[in-house]
Amino acid sequence: MQQYHKMDKVQIARINKYNVLRCLIRNGPINRAAIAKRADLSIPTVMSIIDDLFEKGMVRSMGKGESSGGKPPEMLEVVPDRFYYIGVDIGRTAVRVVVNDIISRQIACLQEPAGELFPEKEFVGRLCALVMQIYGPLHVEKDRILGAGIAMPGLIENETGNVLFSPDFGWNNIPLKSWLQASLPFPVIVENANRALALNESYVPGEEDHSHTTFTVNLGYGIGAGLIMGEDLYAGASGTSGEIGHITVDRGGPLCQCGNRGCLEAVASGAAIAGQGRRLAEQGMSPKLVEFCGGKPETVDAAMIFRAANSGDGAALEIIDTAAEYIGIGLSMAINVLDPDRVVLCGGLMRNGPLFFDRIKASLQRHQMRQTGRQMVLTAGAGGEYSTANGACRVLANSLWRRWALPI
Amino acid sequence: MQQYHKMDKVQIARINKYNVLRCLIRNGPINRAAIAKRADLSIPTVMSIIDDLFEKGMVRSMGKGESSGGKPPEMLEVVPDRFYYIGVDIGRTAVRVVVNDIISRQIACLQEPAGELFPEKEFVGRLCALVMQIYGPLHVEKDRILGAGIAMPGLIENETGNVLFSPDFGWNNIPLKSWLQASLPFPVIVENANRALALNESYVPGEEDHSHTTFTVNLGYGIGAGLIMGEDLYAGASGTSGEIGHITVDRGGPLCQCGNRGCLEAVASGAAIAGQGRRLAEQGMSPKLVEFCGGKPETVDAAMIFRAANSGDGAALEIIDTAAEYIGIGLSMAINVLDPDRVVLCGGLMRNGPLFFDRIKASLQRHQMRQTGRQMVLTAGAGGEYSTANGACRVLANSLWRRWALPI
Repeated sequence: MQQYHKMDKVQIARINKYNVLRCLIRNGPINRAAIAKRADLSIPTVMSIIDDLFEKGMVRSMGKGESSGGKPPEMLEVVPDRFYYIGVDIGRTAVRVVVNDIISRQIACLQEPAGELFPEKEFVGRLCALVMQIYGPLHVEKDRILGAGIAMPGLIENETGNVLFSPDFGWNNIPLKSWLQASLPFPVIVENANRALALNESYVPGEEDHSHTTFTVNLGYGIGAGLIMGEDLYAGASGTSGEIGHITVDRGGPLCQCGNRGCLEAVASGAAIAGQGRRLAEQGMSPKLVEFCGGKPETVDAAMIFRAANSGDGAALEIIDTAAEYIGIGLSMAINVLDPDRVVLCGGLMRNGPLFFDRIKASLQRHQMRQTGRQMVLTAGAGGEYSTANGACRVLANSLWRRWALPI
Repeated sequence: MQQYHKMDKVQIARINKYNVLRCLIRNGPINRAAIAKRADLSIPTVMSIIDDLFEKGMVRSMGKGESSGGKPPEMLEVVPDRFYYIGVDIGRTAVRVVVNDIISRQIACLQEPAGELFPEKEFVGRLCALVMQIYGPLHVEKDRILGAGIAMPGLIENETGNVLFSPDFGWNNIPLKSWLQASLPFPVIVENANRALALNESYVPGEEDHSHTTFTVNLGYGIGAGLIMGEDLYAGASGTSGEIGHITVDRGGPLCQCGNRGCLEAVASGAAIAGQGRRLAEQGMSPKLVEFCGGKPETVDAAMIFRAANSGDGAALEIIDTAAEYIGIGLSMAINVLDPDRVVLCGGLMRNGPLFFDRIKASLQRHQMRQTGRQMVLTAGAGGEYSTANGACRVLANSLWRRWALPI
């Protein structure tokens, strides 16, 4: 007994206009008759919507298409630089900013080291400066920027955009959205970084059918995940879904920064792997690691351990093996409960060659429930280093489309 | 860039009619003006819809209400026995059937032992006979039965209603829906039993706001779960979501019937608890259990172990403690990933007093991630022994409402 939203003529007109615009973005260049067919609308309705979009500078003519008997039809496409989305990825090590056009092409990007995280307000001030630094050279009026989507690691309160808690940053109760909004001349929306990444990775270029259930896991300094159903983020009740990093995979195992013991993040994250490698180097148990760190165990990082493992160091390989085993267990748990048809592995730890991916896959196969109806696909993320920032643009775009809030 | 469904006048009229009907079901007796206000419709629109529903026998007058100045308004309510839903819970030990009216009141129920499960077609024949046995005494035309919702444990293929695999039943590739549909004179829909149960348990009587995310876990002979978002079942990609029973909680632990080791179901289900108790009784390690089973260890069941534990038997208590510990770990994993605001524990194991619930809650508190934005409520299921059968009615109702397929 679902609740249906009230419908009236204004609402119908709006739905029709958005359907036409979607058609132009996904299928352009396209002619009016083809839009009418795809969007299941009458040709006069499409004609009047197109007239309106022309007036608003949202659509342009691409000349005549091929005739299918009569007069050759006029081909139309959306004006890609009519509006832009800005996306910001606030990472522990680097801050990345992108500008995407209305058809989701990345047209500008920049990054700089995150640097000092405190005082928080000062850090946020630097973020605003970065956004303005990428906005300036665009030389466009501010109302052509649809807004800025911000991807932030940690627990974000959906309604306020406050950062309740960010373990990576050591932040508590920071009104991130309000601070940004006070300094930026366009709307701001804040989302958890793992979920922004997941949204971006759920898009497969050229795929028209967005009906997949995609679970994306970010294996980096910490471990988190996001679930996308079709084109929608699964948020959960309070905005803390996807915390796969804090499931217990090793009862009584090492202490996690969340306060519990044996969390996946405490045994298999970049931070955990680095810690294990440092101990190996201190104890002189891994000749390769001792060599790579030049005798300074405190400088050992996860990448060094992968290098050591790749060059045949047994002790380093064991660290990688154990981490992959636990990640496979964690994935199998999430898959049993969520039943996705796509699982995407992203993040810094995946940039160390196929070794890690293959081992995670093998562990997953050992622990996964065998009898299912699904043909699940496990892949490595393809979005590159700006994937989270591009995901932040998509978070913003989804929010605007869902609320029919585009200025058209 | 979500896809919006095409809207036209026919669609609007349909949505308005369903909104009025929902209002009558949830808020009746109610007068026309109050419906118009709640459903955000004009009074003439409501009047014409009510006329139509009168004609179809869906609504009746309850006399005059209180006047708020002018003429006292006519109070209306839905005719509750205009249509019925049938719900069937195919359990490993018993089959239960209910008839619910259009306002979800249970008006008939019956159950019988499941008996022999093979040959499958014969078993399904007995199911149909049971359904006809409850239908007969209703003395209503078959088109007043909106259909039969069937709750079946195991992996159900959504599109066909085939049982791909049911470990509890030992069934493989059984066309359950087709077989039932061939013998029953009304539409049939098949859903996983844990999900049907979850749907029923997600309804809180008197609650109008159905916006909760509820995770319901069925702790019985096996262990499964269902996630309800608002009023919708989360299905996953292939229909195998909620398989919390097969997450690995004890690496290298006992073999599970799914073929893996250390699954939650292999260490904490009714079947697992009974197995552990039998071994205790065989080895004479639990005086109480030896007493309760009259020296026949093979007759020990989970309920006996709870009785022994309740009466202070240390060895039996340890079994319960360990099971509760693992269930708490399993719950904490699901909660970290799904972020529900309600978790409901149901099933046979919960019928053994507060001992088990309290221990599970304590384990959950030990393993749950501490920093979240949620106020999560953990409760025991309140739906009783027909909860899954009533859930099967709700599965059917949801399907009909979603497709605007009520005969109105």
